[in-house]
Amino acid sequence: MYHLDFRSDRSMDLVGIGRLCIDLNADQFNRPMEETTSFTKYVGGSPANIAIGAARLGLKSGFIGKVSDDQMGRFIQQYLKENNLDVSGLSLDDTGAVTGLAFTEIKSPEECSILMYRDNVADLKLDTSNVSEEYIRQTKALLISGTALAASPSREAVFLALDYAKKHGVVVFFDLDYRAYTWNNEQETAIYYNLIAEKCDVIIGTREEFDMMEQFESFRQDDHQTAQKWFHYAAEIVVIKHGEAGSIAYTKEGKSERSGIFKTKVLKTFGAGDAYASSFIYGLMNGWELNRAMEFGSASASIVISKHSCSEAMPTVEEIQTFLKTSRKE
Amino acid sequence: MYHLDFRSDRSMDLVGIGRLCIDLNADQFNRPMEETTSFTKYVGGSPANIAIGAARLGLKSGFIGKVSDDQMGRFIQQYLKENNLDVSGLSLDDTGAVTGLAFTEIKSPEECSILMYRDNVADLKLDTSNVSEEYIRQTKALLISGTALAASPSREAVFLALDYAKKHGVVVFFDLDYRAYTWNNEQETAIYYNLIAEKCDVIIGTREEFDMMEQFESFRQDDHQTAQKWFHYAAEIVVIKHGEAGSIAYTKEGKSERSGIFKTKVLKTFGAGDAYASSFIYGLMNGWELNRAMEFGSASASIVISKHSCSEAMPTVEEIQTFLKTSRKE
Amino acid sequence: MYHLDFRSDRSMDLVGIGRLCIDLNADQFNRPMEETTSFTKYVGGSPANIAIGAARLGLKSGFIGKVSDDQMGRFIQQYLKENNLDVSGLSLDDTGAVTGLAFTEIKSPEECSILMYRDNVADLKLDTSNVSEEYIRQTKALLISGTALAASPSREAVFLALDYAKKHGVVVFFDLDYRAYTWNNEQETAIYYNLIAEKCDVIIGTREEFDMMEQFESFRQDDHQTAQKWFHYAAEIVVIKHGEAGSIAYTKEGKSERSGIFKTKVLKTFGAGDAYASSFIYGLMNGWELNRAMEFGSASASIVISKHSCSEAMPTVEEIQTFLKTSRKE
Amino acid sequence: MYHLDFRSDRSMDLVGIGRLCIDLNADQFNRPMEETTSFTKYVGGSPANIAIGAARLGLKSGFIGKVSDDQMGRFIQQYLKENNLDVSGLSLDDTGAVTGLAFTEIKSPEECSILMYRDNVADLKLDTSNVSEEYIRQTKALLISGTALAASPSREAVFLALDYAKKHGVVVFFDLDYRAYTWNNEQETAIYYNLIAEKCDVIIGTREEFDMMEQFESFRQDDHQTAQKWFHYAAEIVVIKHGEAGSIAYTKEGKSERSGIFKTKVLKTFGAGDAYASSFIYGLMNGWELNRAMEFGSASASIVISKHSCSEAMPTVEEIQTFLKTSRKE
Repeated sequence: MYHLDFRSDRSMDLVGIGRLCIDLNADQFNRPMEETTSFTKYVGGSPANIAIGAARLGLKSGFIGKVSDDQMGRFIQQYLKENNLDVSGLSLDDTGAVTGLAFTEIKSPEECSILMYRDNVADLKLDTSNVSEEYIRQTKALLISGTALAASPSREAVFLALDYAKKHGVVVFFDLDYRAYTWNNEQETAIYYNLIAEKCDVIIGTREEFDMMEQFESFRQDDHQTAQKWFHYAAEIVVIKHGEAGSIAYTKEGKSERSGIFKTKVLKTFGAGDAYASSFIYGLMNGWELNRAMEFGSASASIVISKHSCSEAMPTVEEIQTFLKTSRKE
Repeated sequence: MYHLDFRSDRSMDLVGIGRLCIDLNADQFNRPMEETTSFTKYVGGSPANIAIGAARLGLKSGFIGKVSDDQMGRFIQQYLKENNLDVSGLSLDDTGAVTGLAFTEIKSPEECSILMYRDNVADLKLDTSNVSEEYIRQTKALLISGTALAASPSREAVFLALDYAKKHGVVVFFDLDYRAYTWNNEQETAIYYNLIAEKCDVIIGTREEFDMMEQFESFRQDDHQTAQKWFHYAAEIVVIKHGEAGSIAYTKEGKSERSGIFKTKVLKTFGAGDAYASSFIYGLMNGWELNRAMEFGSASASIVISKHSCSEAMPTVEEIQTFLKTSRKE
Repeated sequence: MYHLDFRSDRSMDLVGIGRLCIDLNADQFNRPMEETTSFTKYVGGSPANIAIGAARLGLKSGFIGKVSDDQMGRFIQQYLKENNLDVSGLSLDDTGAVTGLAFTEIKSPEECSILMYRDNVADLKLDTSNVSEEYIRQTKALLISGTALAASPSREAVFLALDYAKKHGVVVFFDLDYRAYTWNNEQETAIYYNLIAEKCDVIIGTREEFDMMEQFESFRQDDHQTAQKWFHYAAEIVVIKHGEAGSIAYTKEGKSERSGIFKTKVLKTFGAGDAYASSFIYGLMNGWELNRAMEFGSASASIVISKHSCSEAMPTVEEIQTFLKTSRKE
Repeated sequence: MYHLDFRSDRSMDLVGIGRLCIDLNADQFNRPMEETTSFTKYVGGSPANIAIGAARLGLKSGFIGKVSDDQMGRFIQQYLKENNLDVSGLSLDDTGAVTGLAFTEIKSPEECSILMYRDNVADLKLDTSNVSEEYIRQTKALLISGTALAASPSREAVFLALDYAKKHGVVVFFDLDYRAYTWNNEQETAIYYNLIAEKCDVIIGTREEFDMMEQFESFRQDDHQTAQKWFHYAAEIVVIKHGEAGSIAYTKEGKSERSGIFKTKVLKTFGAGDAYASSFIYGLMNGWELNRAMEFGSASASIVISKHSCSEAMPTVEEIQTFLKTSRKE
């Protein structure tokens, strides 16, 4: 059905690379941020959330990233450790960079926004000297998140990590996670996203993210063609997300599966994608059928969007199973 | 005793210029920031605190500054309005700048530190086109804070405001407020601090701040010589603060006054200088004797350091009077 | 012997992309530049020289590049036109960039150096919007020079041109032309050089340039392994130059050829590589045996290093043939 | 008539500070630069030209500046030495900066233009540590040129030099020399020009330069008001140049003198202002009447614009005297 070769001779399951930051979630919700008076601090950043989510599900997870040499950086490191992630791949910034911040505003379940602090952030200072070939050869899978490509030297560090992964038979997941504000322009973004995607085994993104990547192509907004493009390169699975309309996954073998979303009481929309990715990856790494992995991902997403945080809300296998028993798909 | 000519034909008392930002004060104190889980949001920034403090004391205050075009910027604007400051001198950034942040850590009353976010901040984007000659000619006094000199175009905006103030007989207070992290180096800092100080009527700073400004001089750490240097230019009063040892004020007329500090239950040290400045300025603008104004400033400082915030904690005249009746100086 | 498919249905033979600049060659030589009093102006830049050389040999050449909107930029454009290059691929900078300069110093034939002006240069402002898919599909071959990868947006423009070339069956030559001063560091350089090289048909560089590209590999300074690495990707021919010791070319088919250099009266060493590349490419595009193309390249190089300029000195086929009849290899 | 106190106890007459660069003058003139094929190299930069001119007239001149650590920088240093300037105030850049270049184009005597290379130039890297109080206290006069104010750290170095000059009774000449391309905007320029001008004894500039400086004033284009503005500060003499209409000089004592220009065969217009300044300063330092110094300056300007270079063409006293005998004013 799909062919992903997770090597059994590895000591880790999944290593994430890229953005590690702090979420400051408004304690008062259903109002504009101007009227909130306090914020609660969580570890955030898409690949960090996914790695934490994977660890919560029982995968042996690690992370390659750079943290600021201050209280925020130490908090992140400590939190990862406490959540059973291997932190030996973390580096400490020595340039005076800060930790990226994401202030969340929850005006209503439908109207959520993020105020980002991304100037001079430590995660984008990750450089090639921080990427250990030895570390990467010890893992079954590598998770790349697109935000890490937004600037040098982080971009080059990711290209090097990808090279090492290919060299040592590590399965590579690419979660597009495109955030316009950290990039110079869409053209630059598309160039580097495509260069990475060419070598990845599983590509996960929204329809809009794939559109951005296809700006130099003659075809447009066609899920099937999108998937076929990447099967000409290294991809085995391409997942295209359509928000509330669910997602569709294609395999190189020629199959496709659709998946809906679950009814739930939504607090905010943040974290849905990260929860989906961590649980979907968990399913694939356990050799599940594609549709079972997708359903597991959707359930995980539903759980996270009903809670206040992203990282801290990542569910266990038991929670997801319980949810699946009691919920129904839309 | 001292000669400051506050023109009676003005509609405002005090206009501040420069840094406007957000303080995020740890809700849990007497512990390292790594262990705090939430932060409360206040308006901050030294000249903003002083202007708010002055308004709390009943002065007609205004502010010339630039705020970010986001929730943080709108919160600041709203807070100033609610606190009776004139906000017609505020400009809105259109470059995508953010609001500066100050995360405070209160390990113990003696061990406080601040984690600053000062990259790409709106307050340093204030430019000459944002400074209205008409606005400045309507005030009795202008308050300049040194942090606004740290970068272009804010630095030039301050030089222009100072020129307008001199042209229209506005008394100028210069609160040194030197923060090393926003400057390239100490040499650059000293050059611009001195250029500003040459034209100011009242200069207020710590011994360390004056030391920085005197790095190209042949004399060192001598309060008397420091004061004399500025009396050769435009200064009428020079206040040099020595932390817990109190402060000393010199007048051009040749007098000097010492002032101690009050015993109080200290929560944190932040905000002491801003409270002192606002209340000291209030005293001078009411024509008080120097030592009475200094004592009023010290009392105000003592009140603020016993509370959680800086801006929000700024006392009224009644609070200070009550404090003075019940407290004793060290 | 080697397999390069130059499509016959194309209106151009060779299109260069990248650096276009001005050489200012000392009129007085065999002395330090401090003692030269005047300089003669020539068009320069490695890929420009190669494209001009190819045109001199009769190939239909074009160029994708960006020139400054000033006298220097107009001079370059005019010179290319006069030398029968198609200039419809040139763009005009509108950011106030300047033309890169290379002041040459000829202390002795063995001691030549270049003083570069590479700040804010127009050629590195080439962006993806300046790269026409239509233009690239009209050429048999594309020549990429490594210096164009040194900065954004030129780097992304080259990646896009390469993608279009692959899509339309255009043979891609990669002349490494590594110049340390335009790069941030060697790690960054290697990452992008390798990403380009993976997709090129013919790679030409010095041993030192390949060493730089192999810094993340376990093997070192082994011509054979270097060539094999690239044959695993798209390369058909890899040429490794060893200065005065001549060069060695490998083909994917498993053959290798060595070529020496010709005795000549050397004025300066500049331009040897560009002359070699243009004539070697000419040979390959005519379907010559590898060793004949290499000898033709060596002869061309010998002619150029005996003259004052690079671009202007590029020889015709007749000149090279005459040279070959009268010279002998070392 | 005017009061400038040149202290007799000094070992140097005039020290320039600021821009030192290279002029590359087209060898072929009366044509656009696109058609010139070679350039001759000269030392250039307004304050360098003035200091060289002053030395040519017999003044003991020195220079505070920074040169690049390459052949261009060494050429400048050597040329100054050979022209009897004291070079002990020169510093060597260690950041990889280049020497500024000015390519001159002489389309006709009336149509001259300059193509500037001012990115990353060594002269703007001069910093406060390169300014010696001891050096400045040894000179009678300091010449400040406005271009040195265009960027940090050169700007701060000039402010420090000015402070030392005031402290030690050094007469300060300010040649405005405003070049828009090195500045961010006109507002910034005016702020710093005014801060410098406030403390200078003699201010020399074109009407357009004074207009730029007066953008925050209520008056406009009025030579008399311009002069009066500066007499309220430290100025003794203000010279306003009106191109071919000659110039007007005002003194604090209330006098003004007009001066025309001489008929001459013009090759190019470059260098006229620098020649004027050096000879005018020479006259003032010899205690001449204002009109005699102005006429001497005009004659010097006429000589330089009839020759190919600026620095190299600076005349001796004898040349100017000969010129004055044989020429007539327009």
